[in-house]
Amino acid sequence: MTNETETDRLTRGQAKLAEITGRSGEQVMTALADIAPDFARYIFEFGYGDIYSRPGLDLRTRMLATVAGLVTLGHAERELEVHIGSALNCGATRDEMVETIMQMALYAGFPAALNALFVAKRVFAAREGAPEE
Amino acid sequence: MTNETETDRLTRGQAKLAEITGRSGEQVMTALADIAPDFARYIFEFGYGDIYSRPGLDLRTRMLATVAGLVTLGHAERELEVHIGSALNCGATRDEMVETIMQMALYAGFPAALNALFVAKRVFAAREGAPEE
Amino acid sequence: MTNETETDRLTRGQAKLAEITGRSGEQVMTALADIAPDFARYIFEFGYGDIYSRPGLDLRTRMLATVAGLVTLGHAERELEVHIGSALNCGATRDEMVETIMQMALYAGFPAALNALFVAKRVFAAREGAPEE
Amino acid sequence: MTNETETDRLTRGQAKLAEITGRSGEQVMTALADIAPDFARYIFEFGYGDIYSRPGLDLRTRMLATVAGLVTLGHAERELEVHIGSALNCGATRDEMVETIMQMALYAGFPAALNALFVAKRVFAAREGAPEE
Amino acid sequence: MTNETETDRLTRGQAKLAEITGRSGEQVMTALADIAPDFARYIFEFGYGDIYSRPGLDLRTRMLATVAGLVTLGHAERELEVHIGSALNCGATRDEMVETIMQMALYAGFPAALNALFVAKRVFAAREGAPEE
Amino acid sequence: MTNETETDRLTRGQAKLAEITGRSGEQVMTALADIAPDFARYIFEFGYGDIYSRPGLDLRTRMLATVAGLVTLGHAERELEVHIGSALNCGATRDEMVETIMQMALYAGFPAALNALFVAKRVFAAREGAPEE
Repeated sequence: MTNETETDRLTRGQAKLAEITGRSGEQVMTALADIAPDFARYIFEFGYGDIYSRPGLDLRTRMLATVAGLVTLGHAERELEVHIGSALNCGATRDEMVETIMQMALYAGFPAALNALFVAKRVFAAREGAPEE
Repeated sequence: MTNETETDRLTRGQAKLAEITGRSGEQVMTALADIAPDFARYIFEFGYGDIYSRPGLDLRTRMLATVAGLVTLGHAERELEVHIGSALNCGATRDEMVETIMQMALYAGFPAALNALFVAKRVFAAREGAPEE
Repeated sequence: MTNETETDRLTRGQAKLAEITGRSGEQVMTALADIAPDFARYIFEFGYGDIYSRPGLDLRTRMLATVAGLVTLGHAERELEVHIGSALNCGATRDEMVETIMQMALYAGFPAALNALFVAKRVFAAREGAPEE
Repeated sequence: MTNETETDRLTRGQAKLAEITGRSGEQVMTALADIAPDFARYIFEFGYGDIYSRPGLDLRTRMLATVAGLVTLGHAERELEVHIGSALNCGATRDEMVETIMQMALYAGFPAALNALFVAKRVFAAREGAPEE
Repeated sequence: MTNETETDRLTRGQAKLAEITGRSGEQVMTALADIAPDFARYIFEFGYGDIYSRPGLDLRTRMLATVAGLVTLGHAERELEVHIGSALNCGATRDEMVETIMQMALYAGFPAALNALFVAKRVFAAREGAPEE
Repeated sequence: MTNETETDRLTRGQAKLAEITGRSGEQVMTALADIAPDFARYIFEFGYGDIYSRPGLDLRTRMLATVAGLVTLGHAERELEVHIGSALNCGATRDEMVETIMQMALYAGFPAALNALFVAKRVFAAREGAPEE
């Protein structure tokens, strides 16, 4: 892997991002273009090219673990919304999503879980009638 | 479910705890006996009897999500140690555990993930040569 | 207590919720109905039926401690708003509320306390002229 | 109050500290002497001279709110230990302390509450047979 | 310093606030006037009069460290917005600001850094064409 | 930069790590060798090769901002200890370190700042009489 160039990582990361999120990562790149374009690059290269591209954990589980982490953070509502969608894209069911969030009530407290359930509700509603499901 | 008594929940919770953790929950009950015995009861009834006993998410995924949440909390080293063991008990592999923890570097930062990897290393080492694996 | 059924807990929890919050918990139940109705049930049964119904701490102090915890969490603005109202319902004065929040500046930092003061201001203003005070 | 000098605040803070903590604040001053003596001064002047000396909330409630905040922080074990003792000094009972900590399970999660119960147990045990109770 | 009165500290704090923030602190005082005027006083006296007025660290570095802390808190968006502006007022460049925020991705996670970059973008845009830059 | 290989990043990261930390990063690599060697590689490549190697912010300021972030996290004592040393290695004075930590009392609370001051005290003491200062 060490002879791989950064271009390879960027390409791999962007493909992985498309696979996982559908397309919502695109907006981040545009939004960061005039303030911190390198940060968008790191998200693609390191986030999606390195971490998300690792074997050893199926994507559905990886996304549910990510949602669990984001619920626990408490303040990452934007990413929570994106990755609840990503988890559904990767094969998690709505029931699994809700279970994962409710499980966090034990560890992150009821307010963090409750708020995340409302985010999930919004994401589920936005997908009703949408072609991709 | 609403005609179930609290005795039923307690029994179910204790059975679920034994299934998940092996036996390490027992110490918590003893440790809490003379300060907050009701809190031990809530852990069994609500934690294991209600939440952990829910269908809708396989136990292996539930435990990996729990580990992800505990890594993100940052300060819950004791529970992290217990539940890394629980996740292995529920069918997660060591590789899946390490992947779940590394994934959290993106969301909870490198120090939280690094510390959790050291906890995992300790748990893995303690199980070497132990009969249950 | 262990022969009590879940129906008893649910009933007790709903009564306690009404006593503490007035009625604002109702919206949570409705809001959760189509995403996670069991979570609403847990809030009533475990949150209000078990924890809030315990003797050993007067409700006014319990609510001020809850507000202190919510200020410190930093991200639970919705619950903070509800429980600042609950604390007033349970006999805390506005001065006591402000003191509790200011005290948290020492432990959770000035931004968390400052934000909570603005939430309190909103809650106080919404009650002006309202019949219940 | 604005014609008061900093010497007055320092004196008032030190008296308040002695009243609340017994004597455990003294160690902080000594421990900070060769690294950040001004920080010890701020703890006395602002922490105890300004905030803790405010009227408007009885000391017992103020200390229980402080414990609630420290439980929620999750990482402040040293201060939690000191202020569980301070709350007892200010008239809170052991039962009230345990109730306050258990209440935080709803908001800060079970691990934070569980850890705090163990700290309380340690503080209670250290006071057994001690003359001041 | 100990013969200084609180009036002196208040005056010094207000001057320091004006130097650092331009004028945005004024709103806080007004906003707190009818809920917790003493809290506004503590922000001026302790925050700006004591801490921000200390020698030993140049203001540009002090503000960048403050931004780093606020990014890591995760929930303090209002203060982050104010102090990104303050750091620019104290001589930090936009590049230094962006670097400081990106650095926090390693410690506080990508969502906290990403959100802060969007806040910075907003602050930078609001200053375009403004006379003071 | 995009034609650079990962080997280049790794080499650059290890050199930067040596420059910043002296040698304490070496232990992390050894400690991770049998549990998550890739995580050590990411620390070198992404942490030190990408982020720490960026121009646009002098290393002394970058390290003080890092310390500010770690103080605020509250639970990252190990990294705090390493990077207080790193900041001194990069030209920050002990006074600047103490000021940076005290500044965080305003944002992360007194317990986080107090604990960090004790860590700094330990780091400073360990360097007394050591040849490198």
